[in-house]
Amino acid sequence: MAKEITPRIENYSQWYLDIVKKANLAENSAVRGSMVIKPYGYAIWEMIQQDLDRRFKETGHVNAYFPLFIPKSFLSKEAEHVEGFAKECAVVTHHRLKANPDGYGLIVDPDARLEEELIVRPTSETIIWNSYRDWIKSYRDLPILINQWANVVRWEMRTRPFLRTSEFLWQEGHTAHSTREEAVAEAEKIHSLYADFAESMMAMPVIKGVKSPSERFAGALETYSIEALMQDGKALQAGTSHFLGQNFAKAFDVKYLTDQNKEEFVWATSWGVSTRLIGGLIMTHSDDDGLVLPPKLAPIQVVIVPIPKPEEALLELAHKLSRILSSKGIRVKVDDDPKQRVGFKFAEYEMMGVPVRIGIGARDLEKGEIEVARRDTKEKFNMILDKADMLIPELLDQIQGNLLMTAKKYRQEMTTRVDDFETFKEVIDNKGGFISAHWDGSIETEEAIKDQTKATIRCIPLDAEAESGHCVYSGKPSNKRVLFAKAY
Amino acid sequence: MAKEITPRIENYSQWYLDIVKKANLAENSAVRGSMVIKPYGYAIWEMIQQDLDRRFKETGHVNAYFPLFIPKSFLSKEAEHVEGFAKECAVVTHHRLKANPDGYGLIVDPDARLEEELIVRPTSETIIWNSYRDWIKSYRDLPILINQWANVVRWEMRTRPFLRTSEFLWQEGHTAHSTREEAVAEAEKIHSLYADFAESMMAMPVIKGVKSPSERFAGALETYSIEALMQDGKALQAGTSHFLGQNFAKAFDVKYLTDQNKEEFVWATSWGVSTRLIGGLIMTHSDDDGLVLPPKLAPIQVVIVPIPKPEEALLELAHKLSRILSSKGIRVKVDDDPKQRVGFKFAEYEMMGVPVRIGIGARDLEKGEIEVARRDTKEKFNMILDKADMLIPELLDQIQGNLLMTAKKYRQEMTTRVDDFETFKEVIDNKGGFISAHWDGSIETEEAIKDQTKATIRCIPLDAEAESGHCVYSGKPSNKRVLFAKAY
Repeated sequence: MAKEITPRIENYSQWYLDIVKKANLAENSAVRGSMVIKPYGYAIWEMIQQDLDRRFKETGHVNAYFPLFIPKSFLSKEAEHVEGFAKECAVVTHHRLKANPDGYGLIVDPDARLEEELIVRPTSETIIWNSYRDWIKSYRDLPILINQWANVVRWEMRTRPFLRTSEFLWQEGHTAHSTREEAVAEAEKIHSLYADFAESMMAMPVIKGVKSPSERFAGALETYSIEALMQDGKALQAGTSHFLGQNFAKAFDVKYLTDQNKEEFVWATSWGVSTRLIGGLIMTHSDDDGLVLPPKLAPIQVVIVPIPKPEEALLELAHKLSRILSSKGIRVKVDDDPKQRVGFKFAEYEMMGVPVRIGIGARDLEKGEIEVARRDTKEKFNMILDKADMLIPELLDQIQGNLLMTAKKYRQEMTTRVDDFETFKEVIDNKGGFISAHWDGSIETEEAIKDQTKATIRCIPLDAEAESGHCVYSGKPSNKRVLFAKAY
Repeated sequence: MAKEITPRIENYSQWYLDIVKKANLAENSAVRGSMVIKPYGYAIWEMIQQDLDRRFKETGHVNAYFPLFIPKSFLSKEAEHVEGFAKECAVVTHHRLKANPDGYGLIVDPDARLEEELIVRPTSETIIWNSYRDWIKSYRDLPILINQWANVVRWEMRTRPFLRTSEFLWQEGHTAHSTREEAVAEAEKIHSLYADFAESMMAMPVIKGVKSPSERFAGALETYSIEALMQDGKALQAGTSHFLGQNFAKAFDVKYLTDQNKEEFVWATSWGVSTRLIGGLIMTHSDDDGLVLPPKLAPIQVVIVPIPKPEEALLELAHKLSRILSSKGIRVKVDDDPKQRVGFKFAEYEMMGVPVRIGIGARDLEKGEIEVARRDTKEKFNMILDKADMLIPELLDQIQGNLLMTAKKYRQEMTTRVDDFETFKEVIDNKGGFISAHWDGSIETEEAIKDQTKATIRCIPLDAEAESGHCVYSGKPSNKRVLFAKAY
């Protein structure tokens, strides 16, 4: 595998595309904006799914599956919602093809036009709340805590693998509650769940906050988001959890009888993370030599390579060590392919971001040692073979911790408190990263800042301390700082 | 939960719909032919997925994800394939809606017409082989052993939940090989994997066979299928594995260099099972009181119900027993909801097909006993509480075994050897089930039998013994029997 990765400093965007390609994560397909997720990229998604799914179930959620297609009329029912999605949706208008009477190939059969067009779901609030109307009669039917793993389509004009694609994979939770308080608590619970997942599994530190009104999900009263910072100083919205109030219940007429026998509209939340997380994972940790994966989400955590060519004794030992490590719950691969050179293999696993590489060579082995290489720091050292069952799990934990610490340190360095607009512009243009600044709370100011700097309010951090100050743009009074950044 | 299930003998088709509804498995959606898979039905699908996915991975397969949309022109490339799918596909023609200038609602924006229409995948051979062309250069790149879990759409005119829906969930394997022999071996390996899954997990006995040429998958040289028999005497095709020869490699120009440096077309297989399996599961075991699930696929294997109302001591014991059984890997639920009567709960778990119900009452408990009820045989008996950790796992195994045995016995009784066409018609009309009969191998005979009886050749069983005879319809010579039945 040739090292054909563009250095980050030269062209960050190309570096990202190179990693996606060279680490065999995904590629463009014949369909504009749709990617093929290749086996190695999909294995990372499976790791993400597995852990999130367990967390959802532990917090009382169950999975279900709702239709891919949404009748066009459903989208119109919630006014803000339709505004957010109508401009970028795939529309099914016919249900049959036929042979082209004028020659080769197929044409759409004009006799097979649908009475009502169907939209390929961009998100499923409407079709789900249409079902909930029949499911919810009384307070006894609540709460409903449902999640689905699904594909969705948003017709994006500018796409980039994982970060923005016309079709993507995600999970979407849709819950129904009898009170406002309970729905808010649910949205906040999932917000915390996402943040904990990002930090503990992805080693990707995130800021927990709420969106400004203009950045809220179409139809939400409050959008909670987790915001991460990428290595080029741009922010990535990595997950959102929405308190939807009674908007969808009203749009789809979903009422319940309280225990006082009164009719009320139901309260809702929805929340999702997507294959975009893989983009965040890549951009948080990887370097100019390839992908770097945190051990907890690495499909292969340890690769064992016999050196030089697999000889019988080395091979046996490699497999024995593999069994020992596997029995500790570690995901191990032995690469005993005799057709490839060791140097090629080393470069390949570096490119793939395998956290730990173990070389087993005849010389070290005489001393009872193996050679261990860390992907994160590039350190190499010898390890007593007999202690590997103890030390390798510890090393994986260390790597996981080191990646999170490094990312936190970077974010800290790249978060700047700013109190005047000249500095604001200079920091955004030259340094990048998060800017912590006062904002007067108006949409006009938000728009003006965006127009002049391309920076948006990423969130109003939940842990922002009360602090009297003046808006960095308008000078009007403000009582806390919000986070600005350019974003993906 | 009221017992509102239509008896099978009265109306089998309505009985099936009643079970699907009353056991909360699925329901129709607002989109014609698309169902909502409700949490309990989806939990069964998750059990199926988990086990199959493990089997695929153990046999060297990896998962990936290919686009939902297929360019229209791709479908035309394989002549038989397009014939099979063009008449029933959802076609995306536009990528934007806009406000209706003449009033309320949304219309399709005529300016957002796609240059080439996109088909929502009915199956993914074409889009996948278009990718494989870039992935395969030499014999070193082979085999490719990929599976994907996905939704697909086939515009069916007559739909029935799980058995036939416009959108359904499935897995589709697509493999690429350097030789014919290897591809055939792969198709056969998966065929056996499916049969073993059906028998050991679903307790659904299946006949392994190959399809007659006219019943093959569109584009296949050989279709292997597993065929099960439902309680109404109709057959269900439960899974298929196809040897595709070089058809798709030729259609998409996928060649590889052999180790002799010669260019050859690649050999292919594809194979899939779908949410249809849930329909088979329902129709194999369930009775007039509701769903019956084999323990290995039951989301809840044991339910523990304190009797009469949960009292503190009973409740504590219920949870203790639940922990003990859970530690043995059993999926247990304690139902301590004080709002519902015990009788209601019993009926509910019966409807849901939970294999074992444990009642914990004060009186039995004085004797150190619990009340155990089997869903399959409806037997009730007392069990020494202290032995439950030993006896309950055994009981679950017994139930699993009993369901398979019962289904096998039924199939045996419902398989009739027939040697003349009058008897054939009489058996199909009155008894139903499989008919084992000689066939002359011609499409004409197959068609004629279908026209006159609605029975089709389900498969040519792999284990059919050589036997000289005469075609049941034409009287022409034949050397083995094939299986006929009416089918779903």
